[in-house]
Amino acid sequence: MALLDLALAVARPILGDKLINCIAINRLVKAGPARPAAWSTLEDDYISWSGLTDKTWFARLLPPDRGPQVVGIGTRHPPTDDLAVLFPAPAGQQVLCPKSTTLFPAFAQYLTDGFLRTRLFNTPQGPRTRPGAEDRRRTTSNHEIDLSALYGRTEEQTRVLRTRVGGLLKSQMIGAEEFPPFLYGMYGLPKAEFCDADGALVLDEPLGVQKSANKESLFAVGGDRVNASVEVASINTLFLREHNRLARMLAVENPIWDDERLFQTARNIVIVMFIRIVVEEYINHISSAPFRFLADPAVAWDASWNKSSWMSIEFTMLYRWHSLVPEYLTWKGEKLVPGATLLNNALLIRDGLAETLTQMSANHAARMGLGNFASFFVDSEAKGIEQGRANDLRGYNDYREVMGLPRARSFAEVVGRGEDRQDSARRAALAAELERLYGYIDNLELYVGLFAEPCQKNSPIPELVLAMVAMDAFSQALPNPLLCKRIWTDPDTLRRTFTDKGVEEIEQTSSLRDILAKQDPGLGSRFIGMTRPGWKRS
Amino acid sequence: MALLDLALAVARPILGDKLINCIAINRLVKAGPARPAAWSTLEDDYISWSGLTDKTWFARLLPPDRGPQVVGIGTRHPPTDDLAVLFPAPAGQQVLCPKSTTLFPAFAQYLTDGFLRTRLFNTPQGPRTRPGAEDRRRTTSNHEIDLSALYGRTEEQTRVLRTRVGGLLKSQMIGAEEFPPFLYGMYGLPKAEFCDADGALVLDEPLGVQKSANKESLFAVGGDRVNASVEVASINTLFLREHNRLARMLAVENPIWDDERLFQTARNIVIVMFIRIVVEEYINHISSAPFRFLADPAVAWDASWNKSSWMSIEFTMLYRWHSLVPEYLTWKGEKLVPGATLLNNALLIRDGLAETLTQMSANHAARMGLGNFASFFVDSEAKGIEQGRANDLRGYNDYREVMGLPRARSFAEVVGRGEDRQDSARRAALAAELERLYGYIDNLELYVGLFAEPCQKNSPIPELVLAMVAMDAFSQALPNPLLCKRIWTDPDTLRRTFTDKGVEEIEQTSSLRDILAKQDPGLGSRFIGMTRPGWKRS
Repeated sequence: MALLDLALAVARPILGDKLINCIAINRLVKAGPARPAAWSTLEDDYISWSGLTDKTWFARLLPPDRGPQVVGIGTRHPPTDDLAVLFPAPAGQQVLCPKSTTLFPAFAQYLTDGFLRTRLFNTPQGPRTRPGAEDRRRTTSNHEIDLSALYGRTEEQTRVLRTRVGGLLKSQMIGAEEFPPFLYGMYGLPKAEFCDADGALVLDEPLGVQKSANKESLFAVGGDRVNASVEVASINTLFLREHNRLARMLAVENPIWDDERLFQTARNIVIVMFIRIVVEEYINHISSAPFRFLADPAVAWDASWNKSSWMSIEFTMLYRWHSLVPEYLTWKGEKLVPGATLLNNALLIRDGLAETLTQMSANHAARMGLGNFASFFVDSEAKGIEQGRANDLRGYNDYREVMGLPRARSFAEVVGRGEDRQDSARRAALAAELERLYGYIDNLELYVGLFAEPCQKNSPIPELVLAMVAMDAFSQALPNPLLCKRIWTDPDTLRRTFTDKGVEEIEQTSSLRDILAKQDPGLGSRFIGMTRPGWKRS
Repeated sequence: MALLDLALAVARPILGDKLINCIAINRLVKAGPARPAAWSTLEDDYISWSGLTDKTWFARLLPPDRGPQVVGIGTRHPPTDDLAVLFPAPAGQQVLCPKSTTLFPAFAQYLTDGFLRTRLFNTPQGPRTRPGAEDRRRTTSNHEIDLSALYGRTEEQTRVLRTRVGGLLKSQMIGAEEFPPFLYGMYGLPKAEFCDADGALVLDEPLGVQKSANKESLFAVGGDRVNASVEVASINTLFLREHNRLARMLAVENPIWDDERLFQTARNIVIVMFIRIVVEEYINHISSAPFRFLADPAVAWDASWNKSSWMSIEFTMLYRWHSLVPEYLTWKGEKLVPGATLLNNALLIRDGLAETLTQMSANHAARMGLGNFASFFVDSEAKGIEQGRANDLRGYNDYREVMGLPRARSFAEVVGRGEDRQDSARRAALAAELERLYGYIDNLELYVGLFAEPCQKNSPIPELVLAMVAMDAFSQALPNPLLCKRIWTDPDTLRRTFTDKGVEEIEQTSSLRDILAKQDPGLGSRFIGMTRPGWKRS
């Protein structure tokens, strides 16, 4: 793999950036099984029309594991409680990631909460095909990168978030800064405008809001997890401001347009800007390749993998990246108590958006992996394990195989060698622990195996996660309807989708910082980014 | 086009059937604009996320016509009443089609009523994006060939049609013959079992049932138009029997399977049989090519046009094939009164399925085109014209151009030369009438232009209809989820979708007659087919 990457890097001056990009993306997507998936989480033993067409189930990369296998040694499903020891970092010894700032996990969360959506008990239930069969097998996803965190997942949610004048999203000014409106009003009750006839946003009440220390600081936004932390809320605030900036710009340029056209056109521009950031900033940050990926929609137009998006259960599982979150943040020189930014937007409101993003970019993310979770996330990992079991996922080695990677032959091979003596000792202990729990390497569960691997060289994530993320990211992002051939090859349709000015705005945007710089001319030379300024390829 | 077809026919012995088939299908699909369509019937002037993702709107092959164009001569929209003269056949002079039996229009109707579904007032309404904007712009389609006429369009409809024992669909025996159950019970009211909690089938009450002479003969079926005629009801009866035959066969082979698995597996087999008949019997009947198309799913796997299906408004328009229906049918030697088979299943019940299909195969279809409609269809054509106008469709010539055909320069060119003196006189009169109504060739509306053309040589349909139908048929049928690469390239998944016996059954089925022959060993040498036995290529 790395060798092929190197060959591509060497060939770049001859073949050109666009062709190298196209070859590299096709290689990553085609490493895994062809789309569409035949199996979904509805199925255990056979394929049905409902499973092939009902997108309230997750797709599957591999068919389910069918019943118990006798392997002689160990077990495929150690008691969840026994696995709890695998996650926490030893007190005071969480290892930091050399490459990533905390802007990286914040963006990852904001992005994936938009479409990797396991249906939980507090969301409305659709008709069920099989009574009793539910939790952690179904999804509320729209299966597209549609910025649902900003705009809502449903028409009704979108409607209550709009002012219905000038194409704007509802917002409030606090001092000189624009924020989403607050969700809660008098007596700590949700404001009536956000409940509306169908419940709208309140049906998706921010998860864990009961635990919130500062409920009145939570925003009315499209996504139920945007308020999960200051970090995520700040990214949403950036896109809210961008939507409104663009809507105002479009209104000046097109004085006869109504609210609807201004809103729809601004949304089109913002969604494509977002996809560009996903590819050009975020994926390039994750990538270990010695060249940069481009958000070139043409790569997907005639590709065999350009099929309509359908989120897979494996994609949902592998994207549980809690271990990236550091136990301690330093904020303007002060060390915060663990979890201080969770469900509490006070810091963002106090310090403003630019300062918040600057502070996020000044902190290291933690190193992804087992034995390195912040204390406040340890409990949530049992859910990942349960989700894998509820869906009868195949083991870790089967997924390595389907992604074209060699099967691991031992637990020592999974955990790798470690970067220094201390790290090696920790990794050896982890391998011993895994062996004690699972006994036999083919018993190792996907969820545990994914995060038992060491981070890939030059990447903040491990090898199998990287392979699966790359495949899904490109094959879900580039087939977005707004990137389709008909729009981008017909100048009139392109103009009626984004306007000429909108296309320019899109082309000028490759990073979160690009957006902030347009909104905030006083940004100066502040560093805002996912890759730490001092980081160098090795 | 014809030349290329000939070249393909000549090259067949060298390249082989499969490759020729692949080249020919790709050529037909790629003749038109790339999928997915950017525009939908939601839009008039600009592209929105809702239009790109909300499949209750039709897709569009071409953007809407934007407002009045000054052309100097004539009008783009003559009064609908003035157009009424274009449709009826002169009394007693309806021309018959040399190639087709009436099995052909019956199958066309059964097929297309399943997915070309304009939302009418009596169907449940979803949330509307723009209040007031509706009829003939929206659809109730599932956008797939899913045999919804047999199984229902919704989960609830499917549920009330099932016995929930042995995977069977509800049916009744009348004498030795199996039919769907009757929909109406005592006092002419729908039976309670078909209303159920959500209304199910009764919300889609057979259209025009008020006019039915024989309401008690109507069947409880998945599609609201299955009872429209004996011809259509007979095809549905054939597939009902096939589903139940397969479910019984699967139950014998797999005694431990529950109702659900038996039902789902039988449905999978029947849907794929249906698609095979669409390609191998129906499309080959329509085609003018000197070779046969094969239902080879592999053709679509890596094709750039393999995108999820989305019915277009143009597809809905061009498939209004009422002129294929003859004024008079001869049934077992007797001439029936016009419209005798409409909304009245008495003949089917009296004569049985084999005899009904035999009689249908013994009658000529009428020749498709203006000036050749049976008297009982003349009124319905205004709806086609209105649908085109409600959706601001572009003109006939723009669609010729987008399909790679030359624009017509005169009305005489549109109507063609005629097959004999009488036909030539009729066609010349039609050209004069069109000129009087539209004035200028670029004013000609799509719907009128489609059926003003003469039938293509060796095909029962005209050139532009043929080009558009071929593109849509292949690009909607072959991307069916049941034909996807993952199912057909993994033997275990294939078996869990259809069973080995099911795959065999599929492979043995290329025509409606093949199905009937399996059900009815006494079928003997009866002719049942869409292409008249005496017909020869010219």
